[in-house]
Amino acid sequence: MTYRGIHHIGVAVKDLETSLSRWVSLFGARPGPVEVNLERGVRLAVLSFDEGPAVELVTPIDEQSAVAGFLERRGEGIQHFALEVDDIEAAVAELRRGGLEFVSETPQSGMGGSRIAFVHPRGLNGVLLELRQTGTRD
Amino acid sequence: MTYRGIHHIGVAVKDLETSLSRWVSLFGARPGPVEVNLERGVRLAVLSFDEGPAVELVTPIDEQSAVAGFLERRGEGIQHFALEVDDIEAAVAELRRGGLEFVSETPQSGMGGSRIAFVHPRGLNGVLLELRQTGTRD
Repeated sequence: MTYRGIHHIGVAVKDLETSLSRWVSLFGARPGPVEVNLERGVRLAVLSFDEGPAVELVTPIDEQSAVAGFLERRGEGIQHFALEVDDIEAAVAELRRGGLEFVSETPQSGMGGSRIAFVHPRGLNGVLLELRQTGTRD
Repeated sequence: MTYRGIHHIGVAVKDLETSLSRWVSLFGARPGPVEVNLERGVRLAVLSFDEGPAVELVTPIDEQSAVAGFLERRGEGIQHFALEVDDIEAAVAELRRGGLEFVSETPQSGMGGSRIAFVHPRGLNGVLLELRQTGTRD
């Protein structure tokens, strides 16, 4: 299994639009459109730099979402990061054999037609890790 | 001011050597040497993927260090991420004008002869952001 590299860093925020315009203004990052992901219970937008991974600002629209729980427990901050994989089923199976647990049983839908799965932080030094297989619309 | 992109993600861990060998084994990431940074009060090692930014595993050697405080308050997890800049003094000055505060007054020494400065999380959605100007040994 090959992990190509880091795809993005996810930052949990309370006010998506205000935070987005602040990051754009401070760092000159290019903002993508605000997207809704009902499966994850969030709204989010991606900030791109000249090269490499993006920063994803994410806010809950569902009180039961992982991001809502994170904000309640810890406040705003870096919530997760994503590693890109070629084959998400193979990656999930291999990491399960390695002793990691996953937040949900099967991969979910992510941005741009991608498929994603979250490794539970308790087996990985407290890191909520997203695995991400690129979609056809990326 | 140009922010080239994300240089690394910093993960605070309790046991550097155990965590390092676990991440290498799980993700096939390539480990760099363990380095000591007395100024930051930490030991750390970098994990590289096929492309893009690295994951830095970092553990305190000084109880007064920011990483020791993070572990005590929140436990292991993603502690910071780093953005690469061409001119760290210019970046610090510009972000101060934009209303951000810095953890220390002047840039410190980082890995490989780099120079680094940390933005205080309270002005930036709870994100501890490292600015990093590449050094001559990178």
